[in-house]
Amino acid sequence: MNTNQKVYLFSEAFTMFAGNDLLMREYLGGKGTGLVQMVNAGLNVPPGLTITTKVCTEYESNKNKLPPGLLEEIFNKLFVIEKGLGKKLGDKTNPLLVSVRSGAKFSMPGMMDTVLNLGLNDETIAGLSKATSNERFTLDSYRRFIQMFGNVVLEISKENFEKILDNFKEKVKAKSDADLDINTLKDIITEFKVLVQEKTKNEFPTDVKKQLELAIEAVFKSWNNPRAKYYRKINKIPDNIGTAVNIQAMVFGNMGNDSGTGVAFTRNPSTGENELFGEYLLNAQGEDVVSGVRTPNKITKLKEDLPNAYKQLAECINKLESYYKDTQDIEFTVEKGRLWLLQTRSAKRTSQAAIKIAVDLAESKLITKEEAITRVDPVTLNQFLLKSFNPIAKERAQREGKLLAIGLNASPGAASGKIVFDPDESEKLCSTGEKVILVRVETCPDDIHGMVPAQGVLTSRGGMTSHAAVVARGMGKPCIAGCETLKIDLEKETVSTNGHILKKGDLISIDGSTGQVFMGSIEAQEPKMTRELKILLDWADTIRKLDVRANADTPNDAKTALEFGACGIGLCRTEHMFMQQERLPWIQKMIMSNTTSEREETLKHLLPFQKQDFKDIFTIMQDKPVTIRLLDPPLHEFLPKLDEMVAIVSDLKCKKKDSSKEESVLTKVRQLHEVNPMMGLRGCRLGISYPEINKMQVQAIFEAACELKKENVNVLIEIMIPLIVEAKELKTVKEQLESTAKNTMQKYGEQVNYKFGTMIEVPRAALTAYEIAEHAEFFSFGTNDLTQMTFAFSRDDAEGGFLLKYLQDKILNDNPFEILDETGVGRLMKLAVEDGRRQRKDLKIGICGEHGGEPRSISFANSLGLNYISCSPYRIPIARLAAAQACLKTQERDK
Amino acid sequence: MNTNQKVYLFSEAFTMFAGNDLLMREYLGGKGTGLVQMVNAGLNVPPGLTITTKVCTEYESNKNKLPPGLLEEIFNKLFVIEKGLGKKLGDKTNPLLVSVRSGAKFSMPGMMDTVLNLGLNDETIAGLSKATSNERFTLDSYRRFIQMFGNVVLEISKENFEKILDNFKEKVKAKSDADLDINTLKDIITEFKVLVQEKTKNEFPTDVKKQLELAIEAVFKSWNNPRAKYYRKINKIPDNIGTAVNIQAMVFGNMGNDSGTGVAFTRNPSTGENELFGEYLLNAQGEDVVSGVRTPNKITKLKEDLPNAYKQLAECINKLESYYKDTQDIEFTVEKGRLWLLQTRSAKRTSQAAIKIAVDLAESKLITKEEAITRVDPVTLNQFLLKSFNPIAKERAQREGKLLAIGLNASPGAASGKIVFDPDESEKLCSTGEKVILVRVETCPDDIHGMVPAQGVLTSRGGMTSHAAVVARGMGKPCIAGCETLKIDLEKETVSTNGHILKKGDLISIDGSTGQVFMGSIEAQEPKMTRELKILLDWADTIRKLDVRANADTPNDAKTALEFGACGIGLCRTEHMFMQQERLPWIQKMIMSNTTSEREETLKHLLPFQKQDFKDIFTIMQDKPVTIRLLDPPLHEFLPKLDEMVAIVSDLKCKKKDSSKEESVLTKVRQLHEVNPMMGLRGCRLGISYPEINKMQVQAIFEAACELKKENVNVLIEIMIPLIVEAKELKTVKEQLESTAKNTMQKYGEQVNYKFGTMIEVPRAALTAYEIAEHAEFFSFGTNDLTQMTFAFSRDDAEGGFLLKYLQDKILNDNPFEILDETGVGRLMKLAVEDGRRQRKDLKIGICGEHGGEPRSISFANSLGLNYISCSPYRIPIARLAAAQACLKTQERDK
Repeated sequence: MNTNQKVYLFSEAFTMFAGNDLLMREYLGGKGTGLVQMVNAGLNVPPGLTITTKVCTEYESNKNKLPPGLLEEIFNKLFVIEKGLGKKLGDKTNPLLVSVRSGAKFSMPGMMDTVLNLGLNDETIAGLSKATSNERFTLDSYRRFIQMFGNVVLEISKENFEKILDNFKEKVKAKSDADLDINTLKDIITEFKVLVQEKTKNEFPTDVKKQLELAIEAVFKSWNNPRAKYYRKINKIPDNIGTAVNIQAMVFGNMGNDSGTGVAFTRNPSTGENELFGEYLLNAQGEDVVSGVRTPNKITKLKEDLPNAYKQLAECINKLESYYKDTQDIEFTVEKGRLWLLQTRSAKRTSQAAIKIAVDLAESKLITKEEAITRVDPVTLNQFLLKSFNPIAKERAQREGKLLAIGLNASPGAASGKIVFDPDESEKLCSTGEKVILVRVETCPDDIHGMVPAQGVLTSRGGMTSHAAVVARGMGKPCIAGCETLKIDLEKETVSTNGHILKKGDLISIDGSTGQVFMGSIEAQEPKMTRELKILLDWADTIRKLDVRANADTPNDAKTALEFGACGIGLCRTEHMFMQQERLPWIQKMIMSNTTSEREETLKHLLPFQKQDFKDIFTIMQDKPVTIRLLDPPLHEFLPKLDEMVAIVSDLKCKKKDSSKEESVLTKVRQLHEVNPMMGLRGCRLGISYPEINKMQVQAIFEAACELKKENVNVLIEIMIPLIVEAKELKTVKEQLESTAKNTMQKYGEQVNYKFGTMIEVPRAALTAYEIAEHAEFFSFGTNDLTQMTFAFSRDDAEGGFLLKYLQDKILNDNPFEILDETGVGRLMKLAVEDGRRQRKDLKIGICGEHGGEPRSISFANSLGLNYISCSPYRIPIARLAAAQACLKTQERDK
Repeated sequence: MNTNQKVYLFSEAFTMFAGNDLLMREYLGGKGTGLVQMVNAGLNVPPGLTITTKVCTEYESNKNKLPPGLLEEIFNKLFVIEKGLGKKLGDKTNPLLVSVRSGAKFSMPGMMDTVLNLGLNDETIAGLSKATSNERFTLDSYRRFIQMFGNVVLEISKENFEKILDNFKEKVKAKSDADLDINTLKDIITEFKVLVQEKTKNEFPTDVKKQLELAIEAVFKSWNNPRAKYYRKINKIPDNIGTAVNIQAMVFGNMGNDSGTGVAFTRNPSTGENELFGEYLLNAQGEDVVSGVRTPNKITKLKEDLPNAYKQLAECINKLESYYKDTQDIEFTVEKGRLWLLQTRSAKRTSQAAIKIAVDLAESKLITKEEAITRVDPVTLNQFLLKSFNPIAKERAQREGKLLAIGLNASPGAASGKIVFDPDESEKLCSTGEKVILVRVETCPDDIHGMVPAQGVLTSRGGMTSHAAVVARGMGKPCIAGCETLKIDLEKETVSTNGHILKKGDLISIDGSTGQVFMGSIEAQEPKMTRELKILLDWADTIRKLDVRANADTPNDAKTALEFGACGIGLCRTEHMFMQQERLPWIQKMIMSNTTSEREETLKHLLPFQKQDFKDIFTIMQDKPVTIRLLDPPLHEFLPKLDEMVAIVSDLKCKKKDSSKEESVLTKVRQLHEVNPMMGLRGCRLGISYPEINKMQVQAIFEAACELKKENVNVLIEIMIPLIVEAKELKTVKEQLESTAKNTMQKYGEQVNYKFGTMIEVPRAALTAYEIAEHAEFFSFGTNDLTQMTFAFSRDDAEGGFLLKYLQDKILNDNPFEILDETGVGRLMKLAVEDGRRQRKDLKIGICGEHGGEPRSISFANSLGLNYISCSPYRIPIARLAAAQACLKTQERDK
C-alpha cells in the first residue's frame, strides 16, 4: 500500500491492503473495512470510496483545513464510480447522489455525523425526478437532504426543521412523513430554504462539489463533538486516531412500497439463537429506523412484504457468517425489490448471546473451542449474570395489578428504582447513592451521562435497535424500549398509563428480559447458569492453570460458589459472623470488658455460634479447602461511631436524663477511637493484643471439624492470619493457635487436615516474604488493602473524592481498586512470590482481594504463576473464563 | 586458651588470653578484665580469680546447679593466692577474707549482687582480730558480713538488719556506724544471728567453703533478678550471656582513720576537665560510698586527709590513662595508708565530657582524630544538647525568692515538672503526657521505671556517684543529688525546705548543671555549642560524605540550624506558617469557601504572610539550598475536630442559642471528615484538587526570591511536592507550578535558581521511582510516612498502643519510627535509589524524616549512597558525627 494515498475505492482496497484486516481497519475505519470486505465476499454493495483516518488527524492538526490534493483525489476516484453507474454528481439529467458517513477504527454508533442524499439542488431534482419517474420520492429526498445538511453541516438545530414539518403535517392531517404529498413537500422545501437563509445569512449551497466538501469537513469535525468525546472516554478509545469518511452511491429505500430499509443481525443478539433478527421500515431511509422516530416492523414480516428481498437477505446472511466466522450486524436497503448492503460489523450482543453464539459456532466446527473461549469478554458475564426478579414476587406484583405496561425487551436484566425523567437529574441523584430508572420518550447520544449511572432505562418510543436499546445492551443495563402505552409529560414530570399516574421519584421496576414495567419495587434474585455457559466454562477449565476459589462468609455464599464452579473457599471472613443480631451484644460485651477473664467469659457465648457457622460451611464444602481468616476489623467497628455517641450523650444530658450507661459506652468508644483505623489495632494485631479472641475462633473451627470428622465429613482447613508485617508476628500467633488446635483435636481424639498461612496485604509483608514464608504454608494477597497501603489511598476517602479527579484527568488510567496496579502493587507481589517460593518451594499463593474476579488482574496473577484466585461467588464464571483466556494469551505470545 | 577452664587467676589470665581484650571481656566480664589488665599494667591490685561467664550460663541451663569440678578448680587457684599472701580462708590464726563480686561483659552498675568480708565466723574473727590488732574493725567487718550475706545470700530483707542497727545506734546515741563501740557491735552481731536463725530456721553458716559456694550461687542467681532483667531490656543487653564472678582478697578501708575507700574518675566525667574527680569516705567499706547512705568527701580533700595515699592515686591515674588511652572510673581502697585498686572501667561520662576528653586526648596525640570521632556516641549528644534555663528567667526566679535549695549537680540539663514521690506514680502520670520530677530520699535500682519517663530526678541523699546520679547521667536526664536541706515526708506527700512546703503535684524546676532547685516552672532555652564540640564536628565534616541539612520551618529554626552547621534546609514545612494566630482565620475562610474564585480571593490575604516568611528564611540561608515542601496536611486539620463540633452544636441547641454559624462549620467538618486522613486528601492530592493553593505558595516563594535577588541575596530554591505515588501527579503539579514560577520571575525580570523534586514517602513512589525521577531533580525520603505505609502502622494509634506490646514481646526489636527499618522500608529505599539514579544519574537523594537525625539510620543512609540527610536543628551535631562514624565504619570494614 501507498501510505500517501488518501482515498480508496471499495473495489480496490482489499487488494491494496493485501487483505490485512487490521491495517485496513486502522486506515479505513470499521465501516469502510466492512464495505471493502463485503465487496470482496461478492455481496451486493453500492460502489463508493473511503477517505482514510489519517486525513482526519491531518485535518485536525492542520487547524481544520483539508489537506491539499484531497478533493482532486476524491473526484478522480468518484469519476470511476460515476462511469460505472452512468450517473454523475450534479448532473442535471441523471444525477448521482451520495451518502457521506463517518467510520472510525472502533465502532461509535450514532456519535458522529452522516449526510444522506447529497448532490441534490433545484436543478438535479428535476433530472432525478425524470430518471426515477418519481417526483414525490425526489422531493422527499430533497426535503430530507436540506434538513440533514442544514442540521449537520450548517449547524441549524433540528427543532427548527421539525417544527416546520410538524406544522405542515398537522395542516394536511398527515400521520407520518410518508403521507405528505408533492405540493406539501414543495412548500416544506421552500420554507426550509427560507430557514437556512435566515439562520446562515446565505442561500442553501447549490454547488454539489461544495456540498460534498462541506459534508466531509462536517464529518471530520464531528470526531470532536462532546458526545463523541464522552463516548470515547467511557469506552477508552484513544482521542488521536480520527475517523474515516465513506462516500457511497445512494440507494433508496424511500422509492415506494417495493423499497425499504432496515437493520439485521445474523443471529439473535439478545439470546444468541440462530435466527434472523432485525427490523425494517418500508418506503423509508436508514435514519428513520435507527432514530426510533417510527416504530419499525420485525424482520420476519419482510417475508410477507417483500418475499424476494427476504430471500436475498437470507442468502447474504449465510455468506457473511462463513466469511466472518461470527455474527454480523448489517444495514440494508431494498430499492425497488433489490437488496443492497450498506454496512456490516461484528454484532454487539448480550453476554448470553455471545456465549451461545461462541459455543454454537464451535460445536458446528466453524471455530475451535479455544477461539470460542476468546470470543466472550469475561467482563460481560457480569451482564449475563444480572439479576432477575424473583418469579413469585413478580407473580404477586402481577396479581396485585402492578403491571403497568409491556414494551420491547431491549436489554435483559431486572431493575427497580425511582423514576427520573432528566439525564442530568439521574446523574445527580445517582451520585448520592439513589437508584433510579431513567424514563424518556426516546434517548439520544446526549443522554448517555444519565444512562450510565441509572439502574435501567425505559423509553416510550424506538425499537430494539434504537439508541436506548443499543446503548443499554452495551452497558449490560436492563432496558425496555418502545413502550408506547406510556404517556410521558415532561412538564408535570409524570408518566401515565392505563389510568395510573406516576410522579418523578415514584418507584418502578423493569424486566428487560420480558419488557414488563411494574409499579413499585420487586425483589430481585441472583442469576443461574445456562447450558452454553456451562459448556464454555468446562472448556475453560481444561485450559486454565489458576484454581478459582470463592470469597464466601456464609453457607449460602458457599452453596452459590459451588454452583458456579468454585474449587474451594479462598476467603471466609469471620467478622460478619459477629454482626448478626443475636451475636452483636456479646461481641460488644466482650469489647466493653476490661480484663482477659471477662473477655474469655463473654467469648464462651460466641463459641457455639461460630462453631455452627463453620459446621454448616464445612458440610457444604466437604473435600474442598476452606480458608478462614481470623477476626480482622478494628473492634470499634462493632460499637457506635464517636460523633454519634457524643450527640447521644449531649442530648441525654440536655434533657437531664440518666446517661451513665451511654457515657460508659462513649468512654470505650473514645478509648478505641483511632486516627487511622485502617492502620491501627486490627488484623493479627488484635490477636496478639487479645489472644483469647483468636483462640476462641480456632477452637470453634477445630471443634466443628472434629465433630464432622466423626460423621465422616472430610474437612480441609486453612487458617489465615491477616495483616502480617513481620515474620515474628506470624510465628507468635501460629504458636498460640497451633496449641489450641492440637488441644482441641486431642480432646476429640481426631486428626483433621489443616494449614496455617497468611494474608500478604501490607507492603512490608511483601518485602519480607522470605522470612514470612518460613512460618506460612500459603500466602493470600489481600490486594484491596495492599493497594490502599501501597498508594496511601484510603479507599473510603479516595473513591468518592480525589480519585475521581485522578481518573478524569487521566493521572491514573484505571481505578487501582478495580484493576490491579501492576506497576506498583504488582511489583511488590512479584517480589513476594519470588522470595516466598525461594524460602518454601511448594508455597501456595493466591489472591483474595476483589481483583480476584477482574480479568486483567487475573491475567496478571496468571503471569505471576500464582496457584489460585478467589473472588465473590458471582464472579467465579468470569474468573474461570479469564483464567483460561490468560493461558491462551500466553500461549499465543509464546508461539 | 583452654575453653574448658572455668577459673582464671588475675595474674595468669592476660597471658592465657594472649591480650585479647574482647575475648577476655566475653569470658571474664568487664570487672574481671579490668582487674587482669591492671595487674598487667603493674598496678597495685589485691590478688584474686575470676569464674567465667560460661559457668553462669551453664549454671542457668543446668537448673541452678554449679558444674562439677568447679569448686575444686576454685580452691586450687585459691591455694595459689593463699600461698602468696600467707593467709588461708577459714584459718583461725590468719584468715583470708574475700569479696565475691559479679561482673558481666557489659557494665550493669548495682544491678547484681556482691558479698564482702567473706570468710568470717566466730572462730576466724578471733584470728583476724589478733592479726590486725583491731578488734573493733574485726567486729565491724563481721557485722557487715552477716548483714550482707544475710540479705544477698539468705534473702532476708535489708530492713530487718537496718532496724536492729538503728535501734542500737539510737540506744548508744551513735551518729553513724563508725561511732559504734565494740560491745554494741557484739550485741548487734548476736541479734543479727538470732534474726538469721528466725528467718532461715538455720544457724548462720560457719563453714567458710560453704559460705563461698553459696555466695557464688547468689551472684549467678542475681543475673536474673527483676531489676537486672529490666536494666538489660532498656540497655539492649542480651539475656543469654551471663555474669562472671570475681573472688578477690579483701583489703580494708574500715581499719581506722588511716584507711578509707572511694571512687575516682581520671578526668571529670561531667565536664571532661583533666582533673582528678571522685569522692571517698574514711574508715569505710566500698558500699558505704556507692549506696549514698553517708555523703562522702570530695576527692581533693584526700590530699589533706591522707597525702601519701593521694600521691599514690595520682600516679595510678597516669598509668591508667596511658594504658587505656581513655578516661577510667576506678574503685580504690586505702588500707593503713596503702592504695589498692579494686576496679577500673571506661568512665561513663556526660556527652560534654566525652567530647572534651576525646578532643583533649586527640590534641595531646594520645589518640587520632578518627579515634576521637568514634569515641563519642552521637546519641549522647542529645544529652549534651539538653536544654538549660533561660538565664534571665532563672535570675528572675532567684530574685523572686523561688530558689528552694542547692544540691549536687549530678547530671546536667534543666527540667521543670510536677513533683511526684512514687516511681509507680511517675510512670503512670508520664504515660498520660504529664511532665514530672521524681523526688526521692535516694533512688535504688527498683526505681528505674519511674526515672525513665520523668523529666528529671531530685534526691535529698547520695553523692555524685550515687545510684540516682549515675543512672540519670546515663540517661542524659537532669539530676540533683544529695540535696540535704530538703525534708521529704512520704506520708504527707510533701517536701519542705527553708519554710516552704511543696505538695505532690506542685511545679518545681531543677538545674542539673548547677544543682539549683526552684519553685515553679522556669522557661528553658536551647543549648549552645562548646569549643570541643565544634572541633570534633569540624573533624567529622572532613570525613563524612553525607551532607547534613536541617528541617526548619521558621527563621528561628534556620538560625539555629546554621549555628549547628547545617549546609541547607532539607525540609521547610509550610503548614506551620498557616497556623499562626493572624493567619489561621484566613486559611479557615479559604477552606470554608465553596468556589475556586472565593478560595483565590482568600488566598490573596495569605500571600504576603508566606512571602515574608520565605524572605526571612532565604535571607538567613543565603547561598544555601532551601527545600520547601508545599502544603501537606489534610485541610480538616485547620478546623475543629468532628466530635468537638458535634458537642458544641448540641450544647448550643440545648441552650436554645443560635447555632447557625457553628452548624455551617460542622457541615464543612463533616464534609472534610475522612476515615483515614493519613491516606486521604493531603499532599499533592490537595494541589491537584485545589491548584490555587499551590500556586499561591509558589508565587510567594518566587516573589520573595526575586525581591531578594534585587538586594543581591542569592537564593537556592528547591520546591518539594509531597505524597507523590505516580509520575503523572508530579508532572501535572510541576507543569502548573513551573508556569507560575516563570510568570513571577518574568514579572520581576529576574532569574532565580530553582529545582523541582519530590518526597518519596509512599511505597508506590519508591516502587515507581524510575518513572518519577523523569520529572524530579531530587528525591527526599519522608521516612516517617514511608514507615507508616510500609508497616500499615498509624503512628498516632500504634505508638501509644499495640506497638508498645510489640516492643515488649520483641516482635519488633526497635520502634521503626525511631530507628529506620532496614529490612522493609530500607528495601523500598534501595529500590528507589537504584531506579531513580538509573533514570537520572545526578539525582540528588536525601532523607527528611526524623530518622535523618538517628545514628543507625544515618549509617544506613550512608550505605545507600544518599547525598544528604535532614533533621531537626538540634540533631544536626548528632547527624554530622554519625555521618562521619558511618564513613569510618565502612572504611574499617573495607580494610
